[in-house]
Amino acid sequence: MKRIQFLTTTILSFILLLCLPASAPAEEGMYPISEISKLDLPAKGLEISPQEIFNPEGASLIDGIVKVNGCSGSFVSPEGLILTNHHCAFGAIQNASSTENDYLADGFLAKTRAEEIPAKGYTVRITESYRDVSAEVLAAAKGIGDPAARTRAIDKKIKAIIKAEEAAHPGKRAEVSEMFTGKSYLLFIYTYLKDVRLVYAPPLSIGEFGGEIDNWEWPRHTGDFSFMRAYAAPDGSPAEYSPENRPFQPAKYIPVAPEGVNEGDFVFILGYPGKTYRHQTSHFLTYDREFQLPYIVKLYDWQINVMEEMGEKDRAVALKHADRVKSRTNVLKRSRGKLQGFQRLPILERKREEEKALQAFIAADRERQKMYGSVLEEIGKVYKELREQAEYEFALEYLPKSVILFEVAKTVYEAALALQKEDIDREPAFMERNFAKTREGLFLKLHDYYEPSDRVFLKERLQRLTELPQGREIPVIAELARDANPGAAIDRFIESLYAGSRLGDAAFVQQALEKSPEALRALNDSFLRFAVEMDSAFRELTETRRRREGALAELSAKLIEVKQQLLGSEFIPDANSTLRLTYGRVRGYSPGDAVTMSPITTLKGIAEKTTGEEPFDAPRKLLELHRAGDYGRFKHPQLGDVPVAILYNTDTTGGNSGSAILNARGQLVGVNFDRVFQATVNDYAWSEEYSRSIGVDIRYVLWVAQKFAGADHLLEEMKVF
Amino acid sequence: MKRIQFLTTTILSFILLLCLPASAPAEEGMYPISEISKLDLPAKGLEISPQEIFNPEGASLIDGIVKVNGCSGSFVSPEGLILTNHHCAFGAIQNASSTENDYLADGFLAKTRAEEIPAKGYTVRITESYRDVSAEVLAAAKGIGDPAARTRAIDKKIKAIIKAEEAAHPGKRAEVSEMFTGKSYLLFIYTYLKDVRLVYAPPLSIGEFGGEIDNWEWPRHTGDFSFMRAYAAPDGSPAEYSPENRPFQPAKYIPVAPEGVNEGDFVFILGYPGKTYRHQTSHFLTYDREFQLPYIVKLYDWQINVMEEMGEKDRAVALKHADRVKSRTNVLKRSRGKLQGFQRLPILERKREEEKALQAFIAADRERQKMYGSVLEEIGKVYKELREQAEYEFALEYLPKSVILFEVAKTVYEAALALQKEDIDREPAFMERNFAKTREGLFLKLHDYYEPSDRVFLKERLQRLTELPQGREIPVIAELARDANPGAAIDRFIESLYAGSRLGDAAFVQQALEKSPEALRALNDSFLRFAVEMDSAFRELTETRRRREGALAELSAKLIEVKQQLLGSEFIPDANSTLRLTYGRVRGYSPGDAVTMSPITTLKGIAEKTTGEEPFDAPRKLLELHRAGDYGRFKHPQLGDVPVAILYNTDTTGGNSGSAILNARGQLVGVNFDRVFQATVNDYAWSEEYSRSIGVDIRYVLWVAQKFAGADHLLEEMKVF
Repeated sequence: MKRIQFLTTTILSFILLLCLPASAPAEEGMYPISEISKLDLPAKGLEISPQEIFNPEGASLIDGIVKVNGCSGSFVSPEGLILTNHHCAFGAIQNASSTENDYLADGFLAKTRAEEIPAKGYTVRITESYRDVSAEVLAAAKGIGDPAARTRAIDKKIKAIIKAEEAAHPGKRAEVSEMFTGKSYLLFIYTYLKDVRLVYAPPLSIGEFGGEIDNWEWPRHTGDFSFMRAYAAPDGSPAEYSPENRPFQPAKYIPVAPEGVNEGDFVFILGYPGKTYRHQTSHFLTYDREFQLPYIVKLYDWQINVMEEMGEKDRAVALKHADRVKSRTNVLKRSRGKLQGFQRLPILERKREEEKALQAFIAADRERQKMYGSVLEEIGKVYKELREQAEYEFALEYLPKSVILFEVAKTVYEAALALQKEDIDREPAFMERNFAKTREGLFLKLHDYYEPSDRVFLKERLQRLTELPQGREIPVIAELARDANPGAAIDRFIESLYAGSRLGDAAFVQQALEKSPEALRALNDSFLRFAVEMDSAFRELTETRRRREGALAELSAKLIEVKQQLLGSEFIPDANSTLRLTYGRVRGYSPGDAVTMSPITTLKGIAEKTTGEEPFDAPRKLLELHRAGDYGRFKHPQLGDVPVAILYNTDTTGGNSGSAILNARGQLVGVNFDRVFQATVNDYAWSEEYSRSIGVDIRYVLWVAQKFAGADHLLEEMKVF
Repeated sequence: MKRIQFLTTTILSFILLLCLPASAPAEEGMYPISEISKLDLPAKGLEISPQEIFNPEGASLIDGIVKVNGCSGSFVSPEGLILTNHHCAFGAIQNASSTENDYLADGFLAKTRAEEIPAKGYTVRITESYRDVSAEVLAAAKGIGDPAARTRAIDKKIKAIIKAEEAAHPGKRAEVSEMFTGKSYLLFIYTYLKDVRLVYAPPLSIGEFGGEIDNWEWPRHTGDFSFMRAYAAPDGSPAEYSPENRPFQPAKYIPVAPEGVNEGDFVFILGYPGKTYRHQTSHFLTYDREFQLPYIVKLYDWQINVMEEMGEKDRAVALKHADRVKSRTNVLKRSRGKLQGFQRLPILERKREEEKALQAFIAADRERQKMYGSVLEEIGKVYKELREQAEYEFALEYLPKSVILFEVAKTVYEAALALQKEDIDREPAFMERNFAKTREGLFLKLHDYYEPSDRVFLKERLQRLTELPQGREIPVIAELARDANPGAAIDRFIESLYAGSRLGDAAFVQQALEKSPEALRALNDSFLRFAVEMDSAFRELTETRRRREGALAELSAKLIEVKQQLLGSEFIPDANSTLRLTYGRVRGYSPGDAVTMSPITTLKGIAEKTTGEEPFDAPRKLLELHRAGDYGRFKHPQLGDVPVAILYNTDTTGGNSGSAILNARGQLVGVNFDRVFQATVNDYAWSEEYSRSIGVDIRYVLWVAQKFAGADHLLEEMKVF
């Protein structure tokens, strides 16, 4: 893993050191759909016309690509059938489950359309169109020197654009995405389908086979897929759930390829990757490595332990904590992977070299030097200030993130304040178009509230805040810190908070969300009072961050500008949850000395891993089908077994979960769901050495659906006979 | 891992099902030296004459092969220089270390012969000759029907043969090894060299790199090697340590091959493998799987936890427990590997098929049926009885094994009883030729005594014994069980035991070992009294086992007889700590679906694994040498790096630690030290799929010695320039 190459480093080395034209490694990049036409995909292996992937004039594959809540997915039939990950449909399956019908444990199959179960809280988003609004957005900030005011002006302009667009396109949603920080903005128009139903989910022992142990690992044997279906009103327009609704008919659906792929085959992915940091400077990487990641690792590791210990004795308590334990364990492992990557790989060193070369390029021209000479240094200053404040800011930020009753109190109070303002002046969470979602999220959190863990987490946060000099500028914290025995004072304070609050009660919160700030204060609720006392500290934090964001936005725009001058060539913005294409090949890798991973796992591996105990508790029926060699048409010709998962070197990140993996002919050959442990650092830099994503093989999806679940009607619907 | 083939199964299938001549997989087998001549080793890849390996008429390679305490090793120079494992020299390094000279942490290099440090308690054994004494031994048991009496008669005969041989060969030691249970016995004459010194040991961060985490795992990067030297009196005869002694000149030494081996190369190993179970029946395997292994896993897992928790707060306590934690962790992981193997592989099923085929072969002939028809069934009966008694017998057996003060008390009392008998009538441990070793072992254990853990372990054992009906036949146990509150009674009893005993004091034990049984009783020591009260239960256990052993010996002999009739061909006895040869090839393997391991690791992997924290804390100097590419002549031509460890499919087990790995020309290319996790089941059955042993590559040994330690004089001594 020493021969890591990064796009920009390679290019810089070539241009600056060897004076030869650049050529980027073939497979890096999460390309916005606007860039697809510029890529010579047929030369890379695509056998269809790139127009069939994206065609602004007519139907194309991207019309079959959807966002399912935070995940990706794709239409796989003309009748709105959606294939996504099991972990993406998890909430819907859990919601539909009861003690009598434990669909999580047993799986769920709707044998008819009538049996499909509404997936409450689920929406399906389709990208309809996009437009560059950079000029409009940046014009709003023109001439504003104060960084915080700039940020405010840009945010307000974006909200105004969205409002106007949504008024012009009733039923659609508009979103403005910042592509290059402080530099370019795209307006996307989306259709949101609100009637989504559960069609087929395998049991957990398939859909989560390997569980947390195998998470971020290869070889993988997780059947992480589920089928859902989008419905629309009889006229085809988006509508809330109604028995009158009909299956949504997408402009295009993705045909499945039951023959799957083989090692070395060309594949590409269309999906909604969340966030990458390729354009960030060494200052950000250093901050992430030295402060942000270790902070999260330490805090989450401890919180997970607390929750797991409390849950050991009581299953109900374990269930209250289950969601948080699962998501934090995931973040924890990913963060550890990144830290390990920073240690093993010269990521930071390469970034510094790259910046040195850029600085040399700038210095080589007097005009450039005047214009950009101090950009990197200025960015460094922002991070220096951030680093100095970070302990305090994180102590504050992770107070609502750790303590549910505090988050409820804070949200209720902020909502009351926001509702007194014009819609356009509110924080996005409290705008009319988003408030229902914000409320829903709040009640979901309240559902997981468990007082004993809440108290422990609050105590830890209060201890931190009282120990920090900046924390003591908050009167209520200062009072605790002043006590002769601050520990005891914190204990008494926590005692009084939980004794004097009714925010643990959803009905009370429901009522509170209707009240004005004055009426809230009159409730005399201890936690609400605490939130009011903390309010100015949080406002100040928001303002500080707005200022920093404004400063960084201007600097980042300049940085991109001069990098473009240096590199001349195409430039890919970091991932930002907008639709992207990434391509590559089905390919194994070496995670370390003397180990080689091949890129296709099979049923054999499920049998090998099976211990009978969760998470390695494959269903007996599945094992018997394997033993009997009942593979149907899904047997891999060389491996002589049904493929389960595949590995490929495309460039993905969180948010790509559920993305269709497509072959050279644009057919679906798998569903993306994870990366290998070494690829956690892919967010900073792609590398042929370690950047590998993991998908469930379409042959396993179809084999499980047919042989294990008896869902022949779904195979027929997908035209697999 | 489904295509597992076992020697006997394969043969049986061929003979019985296909009526074709048998051919065993090439690489199975731990061949006694008496069998080497019958193997066509040149056809397998050996490039020297088999006579050069073993030649009863003159010097051959086996004269260069030694046993170093419980390990194997080899002479690598004409001056008695021995290469073995770091973990085999561990005790010597620890003993030589002090706070000022921490050779464990820092490593040790004697720059001159004068600086070599005596390795107290170390002996080096050389096999001089062997002779079949089966007829003599079995004659002693002739006509004795009672199984226990048979065992006693055989044991006594063996002791008599040893006594006579040792009288005839002063200075040598004789040992009789049972080759095929109840059937064949070999007398070995050994030379024991008693002046052994430490020459070079790398630091723990090389010698134990990877520690318990990497134990039983591949890829491996442990530099598990050390150099020692054997000394003899000026006339060449064995002698205790004396400054007058001179380096021992072996009849033959093993030349090292600094060019090492490559993937696919032929290799063989000469060493002293401890114990295998290939000739055991399905009854034994079932017993091992269902009772013995789970019992040990449960008990050791708990004991290790207890010791680790106690050690967490106090380093001195951790050191008291270190040896036991280390050895039990090793056994625990091995036992878990075996249980996993039983679950994943059809080991038991194949054994049953094999026995079915054997039974059919027996039934096909009336005479055979009469002679052998009930052998397997009779063996089954013995195991049935054993299984019924096992809970009780293990509760008893693991009382001294878990509780140090009890073991001391029991040994002291039994020694006093034994010393009243004729030497030939004593248990071997108390015979004159062994008693010094027994005493030494006892004081080593006492050195690790820590009262709090001893109490916890005793309590657990007493609870078990009081809960078992058989345990309640022991008066002292019955009294505890009869109490209204047995738990409290046990606590009071333990209190009184530890309050009323002085056996924790080595000086007191020293004195006690001089006393008669009566004098011991007069000491009125609570633990001694307890041991006296338990004595008849332990005697009964010994007698029961003697009876079972006698019965099984007769049955096993018959079983081997009829198996030989069936298979006709050569037959290899199970490992029994006698000198064996095993051969094979340097070869990778697949531990599971989609994973391939290549058979040579390199320095690159050390850098990858290094975290800076123990056990992945490679020395900075080593990492710098790697970074600088300072590989000297030890670079692997294809891998471009110094090889660290190698993997090969020879047939090894515990006791092979430190064994020389030899190339086709009989030169040393590595030092064996472990097996892969999947190969823990190799003790039951060898398989090309999973039987892989791990050795440290000679290139790493020499590279570390030269580049890291500056021990050029050792390379010169080995004629590596």
